[in-house]
Amino acid sequence: MASNIQRMKIGDFLLRRLEEAGIRHLFGLPGDYNLTMLQQLHDAGRMKWIGTTGELTASYAADGYARLNGLGALLVTNGVGPLSAINGVGGAYAEHVPVICIAGSIPLRSIDRGLGMHHTMADGNFDHFLNAYKPVTVAQARITPRNAVTEIDRLILTAWREKLPVYMEFPSDIAYLDIEVPEAPLVLAEPPSDPERLRSCVAAVAERLSAAKSPAILVDTDADRFGVASELMDLANKLQAPVAVINAAKGVIDESFPHYVGMYAGKASEPGVCETIESSDCLLAIAYRPIEVTTGDFSASLPANTIHARAHSLDIGHDNYQAVTLKEILRGVINAVPEVSHRAPRHVVAAAMPSTDIDANAKLTQAFYWPAIQRYLRPGDVLYVDNGTSFSLLGLKLPPGCTFIGSINWGSIGYSVGALLGALTAAPERRHILLIGDGSFQVTAQELSTILRHDYKPVIMLINNGGYTIERGYLGKTEPYNDVANWSYANLPKVLRPDTSARSFVARTGADLQKALDAPNDTLIFVESIMDSCDAPALVTRSSNLGAELDYGPTGPQHREGLQLRPATSQMTA
Amino acid sequence: MASNIQRMKIGDFLLRRLEEAGIRHLFGLPGDYNLTMLQQLHDAGRMKWIGTTGELTASYAADGYARLNGLGALLVTNGVGPLSAINGVGGAYAEHVPVICIAGSIPLRSIDRGLGMHHTMADGNFDHFLNAYKPVTVAQARITPRNAVTEIDRLILTAWREKLPVYMEFPSDIAYLDIEVPEAPLVLAEPPSDPERLRSCVAAVAERLSAAKSPAILVDTDADRFGVASELMDLANKLQAPVAVINAAKGVIDESFPHYVGMYAGKASEPGVCETIESSDCLLAIAYRPIEVTTGDFSASLPANTIHARAHSLDIGHDNYQAVTLKEILRGVINAVPEVSHRAPRHVVAAAMPSTDIDANAKLTQAFYWPAIQRYLRPGDVLYVDNGTSFSLLGLKLPPGCTFIGSINWGSIGYSVGALLGALTAAPERRHILLIGDGSFQVTAQELSTILRHDYKPVIMLINNGGYTIERGYLGKTEPYNDVANWSYANLPKVLRPDTSARSFVARTGADLQKALDAPNDTLIFVESIMDSCDAPALVTRSSNLGAELDYGPTGPQHREGLQLRPATSQMTA
Repeated sequence: MASNIQRMKIGDFLLRRLEEAGIRHLFGLPGDYNLTMLQQLHDAGRMKWIGTTGELTASYAADGYARLNGLGALLVTNGVGPLSAINGVGGAYAEHVPVICIAGSIPLRSIDRGLGMHHTMADGNFDHFLNAYKPVTVAQARITPRNAVTEIDRLILTAWREKLPVYMEFPSDIAYLDIEVPEAPLVLAEPPSDPERLRSCVAAVAERLSAAKSPAILVDTDADRFGVASELMDLANKLQAPVAVINAAKGVIDESFPHYVGMYAGKASEPGVCETIESSDCLLAIAYRPIEVTTGDFSASLPANTIHARAHSLDIGHDNYQAVTLKEILRGVINAVPEVSHRAPRHVVAAAMPSTDIDANAKLTQAFYWPAIQRYLRPGDVLYVDNGTSFSLLGLKLPPGCTFIGSINWGSIGYSVGALLGALTAAPERRHILLIGDGSFQVTAQELSTILRHDYKPVIMLINNGGYTIERGYLGKTEPYNDVANWSYANLPKVLRPDTSARSFVARTGADLQKALDAPNDTLIFVESIMDSCDAPALVTRSSNLGAELDYGPTGPQHREGLQLRPATSQMTA
Repeated sequence: MASNIQRMKIGDFLLRRLEEAGIRHLFGLPGDYNLTMLQQLHDAGRMKWIGTTGELTASYAADGYARLNGLGALLVTNGVGPLSAINGVGGAYAEHVPVICIAGSIPLRSIDRGLGMHHTMADGNFDHFLNAYKPVTVAQARITPRNAVTEIDRLILTAWREKLPVYMEFPSDIAYLDIEVPEAPLVLAEPPSDPERLRSCVAAVAERLSAAKSPAILVDTDADRFGVASELMDLANKLQAPVAVINAAKGVIDESFPHYVGMYAGKASEPGVCETIESSDCLLAIAYRPIEVTTGDFSASLPANTIHARAHSLDIGHDNYQAVTLKEILRGVINAVPEVSHRAPRHVVAAAMPSTDIDANAKLTQAFYWPAIQRYLRPGDVLYVDNGTSFSLLGLKLPPGCTFIGSINWGSIGYSVGALLGALTAAPERRHILLIGDGSFQVTAQELSTILRHDYKPVIMLINNGGYTIERGYLGKTEPYNDVANWSYANLPKVLRPDTSARSFVARTGADLQKALDAPNDTLIFVESIMDSCDAPALVTRSSNLGAELDYGPTGPQHREGLQLRPATSQMTA
């Protein structure tokens, strides 16, 4: 069945394909090599252009957008654009987020003729940026009139299917060239599983789970990326099996779900979770990727007979199944396992953030801060943590329907500001709360300008504690290399948008903080909370101390007197 | 002769080698993987750490530092650091600047064991960042205890000899390990030329130059990088030969040098220069790299018999000479050619920036701005242009001893703010003047914080004209994709440093501008000049219009009514 053909300009075709893939906004910066496509976008009047202050934040925004929208894209200009954006695209690769990075590139004419052009190395090699992107994307291509249909469809579909970023170079002189394109829309769909492999796989998994006395489920981030959280909850319901997440998958399983037991990280797990997971006689692990910061510094130890399910394959015992998809497997298993009624849901221990009786008029501390944030959360919030003491959010209990946006593995400071812009653009109707420290904020602070420009209304909770406090727990407790300049953060919104209606607060006491948190969310709220540089939750400090052992080894300087921030004695038992 | 051996910690050895190579400051951000080396730097108390707000600006700073210091370096943390910095390192590659990018990386222990670590792709491949850096550096290595001496020396020496960036991964667990190292300091020196090749080469060049009736010299940026500007002036003096530069090499030849004739760019050359170069019967071109923005959109056309001298080779007629260095060739040629006295120096036409009689109380315009800047310049200034209408600096006449820092080929907007930090650090005693537009400034604005933190006293001349005016000359004269948010720029210094003594000015008229320029340079001066978004010097607009033809080709939309900013009619004959 040949599909019908129509004629289109190549740039219009790319924009059409992006729209068909569900992309309604494009982030980036104009440059002479991408202006043709920007003009086509402007003329079409459908997709919206969200100009950012720089390419790095454009890539973070596309990532944040993709987390809520399923797919995100950015448009930058040759050489300087892709290289400025590559850290965000690399982060999308590390965190499994489908982002399409499009670089309007030098014209094909110049490539054909070998001409030196600005925004290149001017050394006659035009493949440098495609090569630089190979380690951080799952597919790359330079578009030409002859490959446009094939490559555009391949890149978009590959990004969506693999949940990984792709890189496209789009020469500036082809946007307005006519080609033949299919009339049929691009369909984003997984190829169906091999029927026999799927049947066998489902049977094997269901058999093990049905026979188990203490089945359990451990969830990593791909459960979110491949959209199987509801299947996992259905399965847990049917089996009355406990479900834990790793910290990177915070919030993927609704924390009010009766079978949710908490966060697993080996010896750094939430209470009771370690035993539940490690003593399960049939653990189903979903795309588990152990790294030091998700495993309590490699203290995690899954049962030897763990079933490892991934997006497109599954390991059980000695068998490996290919040509199967996670969603079909889970649906099959849900149907195949018997309904269990004899295992009562394990009561979830309330998060370790009790209300405190700290004097609200005393100097603000982390011990006051986090319980206040806990009380502030409400169902449906989108929550962002950047690196630092803001990791404390991982210890809070999320109300129903919350989304957690973080980058636990990649951990690029400043990511969250760009991600906030992107996710706000995808879901402006939700309340978005950014938890960030001064060091992280300084990397990408100017993107607040774009958030203000579009009248978004997030809550930005900034901790001003003079530097990279999380690093002080590794090395350099008071050494100046961990200090940052002290900005007047709360005054930034009105510099970036002089007519802003944003409300800024500086909290020096608990009472100040509470007043800020009581403000209505009818405009952007910016709260600068001033705390001591050595005030850090034990959760964070302990993890940094452990990390230092791993990073520096036995000859490292971490044990020298006073060189490392340690948990306060009063926190040691927390 | 075996050199003596001593024992050192690997991190201390690296720092020692960097110092021996003349590096007194290191730019970057702390991260858990580089804190060991930062502690060693702190303990040694010799080299200074200049913490930046982000890695991109650290790479720009290292580049700016290297331009004045001969070599620059940055220190970042695994994965997120090198990828955030790669655009600046790529720029150093494109612009031939020796920058050493050091990434404190995951420990060798984790690499040996194949452990998943944060700041990686967590996919078992630890070479991704080395691979990403291959297209943008001339050499890369991961340091181990067994290769440390060899690789550290190789990377530093290669960067210095090639005037190109290099990339080094330095695992976090080796900084404090003891190795044997040579006592002898690292010597930065070119290998001497092959004596026979050098003699033949000098003879061939000298013969052609001596016999020529109208010899001329054309200078590209490598003349600066390889430090041969004074040799070129000596040669021009002896031959009484005119010297021109391409725009990227602005200021490399002192513009008050009697034989300096101006800027060559084909049909876009300064008056008289095109004829001088293209009709020379013996043109000596120094490392000429033609790209569209340096050649008047490929209207440049050097004589067929041009002698092409490069840093380490030379082409003359059918002969190619290798194993020769530019400096030795030039010194040899200076000795070999006869002193000429019959060619009078060509009188240099004053730059096309006459004083104007524009009403100083009228709305500020570009026509008023640039003559005012011309008058502001004084001998010894360091001048920076970022992309945009600030390119107008290229049309000004530089007083003696000025240094021009630009990135004409790579052209990454925002570069200049980071470069300013770096070059200020290398030469704080000079006056530094940054010329930048709002769009470029927004990319890296926060690095102003570090400039303020160190009490540097540059002059920052920011044009607030609502967006990317240079792009409006390509496409999108009034289309919103070329607009940026309107900041209250002049208020930024006091947000980034609340106790700053910086003086901020907002210039809406010529008189406002003049008042700002009259302020003493005893503190940082920040001047926000507000101009119309479609007010652009004809030099810039015409170049953009030409660029659009090249970029978009005959089917592009650039000729559609009103889509492109064109030179004002009154400017057409300028």
